[in-house]
Amino acid sequence: MSKEVFKGKNIKIELENGVVISKDKLIIAGPCAIESYDQLFNTAKFVKSLGANVLRGGAYKPRTSPFSFQGLKEEGLEILKSVKKEVEIPVITELMDVRDLDRVYDVADIIQIGSRNMHNFSLLIEVGKQDKPVFLKRGMSATIKEWINAAEYIAMGGNTNIIMCERGIRTYNDYTRNTLDLAAVPIIKKETGLPVVVDPSHGTGIRELIRPMSLAAFAAGADGIMVEVHPDPENALSDGAQSLNFDEFEELIKSLKNGAM
Amino acid sequence: MSKEVFKGKNIKIELENGVVISKDKLIIAGPCAIESYDQLFNTAKFVKSLGANVLRGGAYKPRTSPFSFQGLKEEGLEILKSVKKEVEIPVITELMDVRDLDRVYDVADIIQIGSRNMHNFSLLIEVGKQDKPVFLKRGMSATIKEWINAAEYIAMGGNTNIIMCERGIRTYNDYTRNTLDLAAVPIIKKETGLPVVVDPSHGTGIRELIRPMSLAAFAAGADGIMVEVHPDPENALSDGAQSLNFDEFEELIKSLKNGAM
Amino acid sequence: MSKEVFKGKNIKIELENGVVISKDKLIIAGPCAIESYDQLFNTAKFVKSLGANVLRGGAYKPRTSPFSFQGLKEEGLEILKSVKKEVEIPVITELMDVRDLDRVYDVADIIQIGSRNMHNFSLLIEVGKQDKPVFLKRGMSATIKEWINAAEYIAMGGNTNIIMCERGIRTYNDYTRNTLDLAAVPIIKKETGLPVVVDPSHGTGIRELIRPMSLAAFAAGADGIMVEVHPDPENALSDGAQSLNFDEFEELIKSLKNGAM
Amino acid sequence: MSKEVFKGKNIKIELENGVVISKDKLIIAGPCAIESYDQLFNTAKFVKSLGANVLRGGAYKPRTSPFSFQGLKEEGLEILKSVKKEVEIPVITELMDVRDLDRVYDVADIIQIGSRNMHNFSLLIEVGKQDKPVFLKRGMSATIKEWINAAEYIAMGGNTNIIMCERGIRTYNDYTRNTLDLAAVPIIKKETGLPVVVDPSHGTGIRELIRPMSLAAFAAGADGIMVEVHPDPENALSDGAQSLNFDEFEELIKSLKNGAM
Repeated sequence: MSKEVFKGKNIKIELENGVVISKDKLIIAGPCAIESYDQLFNTAKFVKSLGANVLRGGAYKPRTSPFSFQGLKEEGLEILKSVKKEVEIPVITELMDVRDLDRVYDVADIIQIGSRNMHNFSLLIEVGKQDKPVFLKRGMSATIKEWINAAEYIAMGGNTNIIMCERGIRTYNDYTRNTLDLAAVPIIKKETGLPVVVDPSHGTGIRELIRPMSLAAFAAGADGIMVEVHPDPENALSDGAQSLNFDEFEELIKSLKNGAM
Repeated sequence: MSKEVFKGKNIKIELENGVVISKDKLIIAGPCAIESYDQLFNTAKFVKSLGANVLRGGAYKPRTSPFSFQGLKEEGLEILKSVKKEVEIPVITELMDVRDLDRVYDVADIIQIGSRNMHNFSLLIEVGKQDKPVFLKRGMSATIKEWINAAEYIAMGGNTNIIMCERGIRTYNDYTRNTLDLAAVPIIKKETGLPVVVDPSHGTGIRELIRPMSLAAFAAGADGIMVEVHPDPENALSDGAQSLNFDEFEELIKSLKNGAM
Repeated sequence: MSKEVFKGKNIKIELENGVVISKDKLIIAGPCAIESYDQLFNTAKFVKSLGANVLRGGAYKPRTSPFSFQGLKEEGLEILKSVKKEVEIPVITELMDVRDLDRVYDVADIIQIGSRNMHNFSLLIEVGKQDKPVFLKRGMSATIKEWINAAEYIAMGGNTNIIMCERGIRTYNDYTRNTLDLAAVPIIKKETGLPVVVDPSHGTGIRELIRPMSLAAFAAGADGIMVEVHPDPENALSDGAQSLNFDEFEELIKSLKNGAM
Repeated sequence: MSKEVFKGKNIKIELENGVVISKDKLIIAGPCAIESYDQLFNTAKFVKSLGANVLRGGAYKPRTSPFSFQGLKEEGLEILKSVKKEVEIPVITELMDVRDLDRVYDVADIIQIGSRNMHNFSLLIEVGKQDKPVFLKRGMSATIKEWINAAEYIAMGGNTNIIMCERGIRTYNDYTRNTLDLAAVPIIKKETGLPVVVDPSHGTGIRELIRPMSLAAFAAGADGIMVEVHPDPENALSDGAQSLNFDEFEELIKSLKNGAM
């Protein structure tokens, strides 16, 4: 596989707040989609206070249906920029279109490539040419090899600061939204040496499963987790069923401190 | 589902050679990738002489590995343009990047969106704003609903001239490259009224299965097939194992005339 | 694979009504479960009058839930025996338990091994030791190789009169009950030479898809189809949604005569 | 689902060595197949000395191919009986055929139903009528609901001492033998209250992944693990690639003591 590309590179990604990936454990938290300044600001304050070290928040949202809420786009990026400065927390946000790269680059500390774009090779090539860390979500039905190939597309441009994100794969299993493939964590680490973060929110689609799957992810060797947190999940504009409210996030952090991290 | 969007629209797509989709059966044939003028010209002459009514040929190739042949790109489009004119046959070619739309539009009679980009919503939105027919391949693990949603992204821009292409889905089954889901043919026709073309080359990945699966596709109600034909499959730069040579294509056409079409 | 086991054996299975598999096309029709004498008798008369050459009817029913109707068992076998004699049509019925072999042998012209028992090796070994043809349904997630291995378990006992039945595989696809893998038809014929029958009722789970998928099955080279027919599908004790009523079965037969067979 | 069947039942299974499931964590270890007295005795002594509280060893082996080693059968059961007595450790072994129930009952402390027989309803019904705990492996492509339904078949006979075993599901993913679905652990516990054991050996098929997946299993809430241990995995008659040698098992136990249990 791709051992030649990544081998021996000691991937060490430093964020502005001093967090060093993959020395420090990453707790990436925040809403699926940015809905308003207040929503993002309150969430950011809260999750930071509990130890989250990166804020997530989507401005461009890849939605299956064109009739669903598509994100606040540029307005969302503006909000993200303000909150990042106000709350002093690094931020990650998704890039869906090569034409938005400059705008996203301007705000993001980490640029996310979503599952639906893992095979969007033009996009991979472009983020490989810039210098911010790239967060590469596994495609919905990507093999380990294809996922690593996607990372190679990025690395080809010179940027090897890649964080691999396991977010569940599509199987016949209909109880959970996806099937979280935690074996991918040690596999990716062995095959590439890249840091691996697990997203139990998308990986299960069920709020109650986020805590046990976060604990399991760290036990399997993950370098971090990405979880959706929303002040009011019932009224979230997207992914409410898999978002934690503030109390639930607090419990998650307690469990992690007692155990896995 | 999306009956509101497509319902009642009598999709009728006319090509320059007088072919009317979905009245006439589409036989789309040609190489996976354009490799040279001679390769494409000879293939085009041959497949047209046997009744193929659209020539396929990839200039931009989405390859899983960045180290595989990526297509001749602009040079490939130039070759396609010449051959199209010389042989007088409409052509289909893939668009992978919104920034290449004008170049592809200039040559293509039908613009192909590949499986890996079925969820590249920016690309879908852009091809929805132009007036050439769009050939929408099903994503590797797309549900029927997601595939129709992708068509809706295109239709939203005003372009409902969409041809849906079933090309096999990813399953546990390891004998064939993909599992050809022929039930999708009557399902898509019922749910949307859009024409459906089947690609048995990608759908099976095995040369010997192209003939029976083409017959089965027409029996299931398909409006056409897309097959890979190469003068010398053993030395093809991509997808050789699933390409027909000229003799095999001739036999396929004979079988179709005896039977299904 | 298993070419050594089956190779060169010219599988030729003769039924009492003169049907020779795989020279004649098999039309196996009847209810999922035997519910009463009248239900089975009327169905048998009707499907035979239209050209069905084997009657199906389950006495032992493998149901996912223990709280669902489990079949009439011995009483069902008695009904099947009477109807078979009265209507003069060969019958196929499922064997689920080695301890019922004698009882099923006494009635059946073809013994069915269901999907859920494709890996029940004890059962395979027993039916391999008796002399009636065995109808081996593909397991829900069996690979081609595993399915052939199961046939080898039967053949080991001396019985190579095996009919392979493609009935759809389990995939992520949620529109149909299963994904009908028609490529399996030419593959199994090439790898083993055994006759292959397709079950579009279980393969799709949707009544409207039975006709196009039956046509496609024959076009792909199938030696027969197995379809569920019930006098009153809405009130069937099992699998009503995928059963044809009498009128629908008549239309299916007309389509087949006009086309594929 | 099946909350009615299991709800409120406080499943408490006591083994002869005082182990109480699910109060104590289960460490089930031993060879895939019993090959000889020495092989089993040495393994049993060793794993017990490190804290394993149940010995596994297959006498009847369900092998995909009829030409593979099928287990020592009755001779294997005799060996298991002697070793159990000599080493003083409870044993688990698989039952594949209703006709072997008495023989297996005579030796086993826990009766295993393998993945391939999860839908063998006759077998489920029979083990539901006897009083030893049943270890129910999830079928290769069983949904959560179907797996619970299988447990209900057992419970119907009066035996609710059921241990559910997650052993990986079949997906498109080709890096590991199966995809270990750890989310099933909290789901089964919530839906049924039954104890859940994870089998990382079959769940991954790769020796190196057993340690991280065992840790992850306990972190997700599992009541135990089942691992394959063999004195000489390279020369094992089955499943060598996923078996631990003695040193590797020792390391696994150390990791578990440092962490998860």
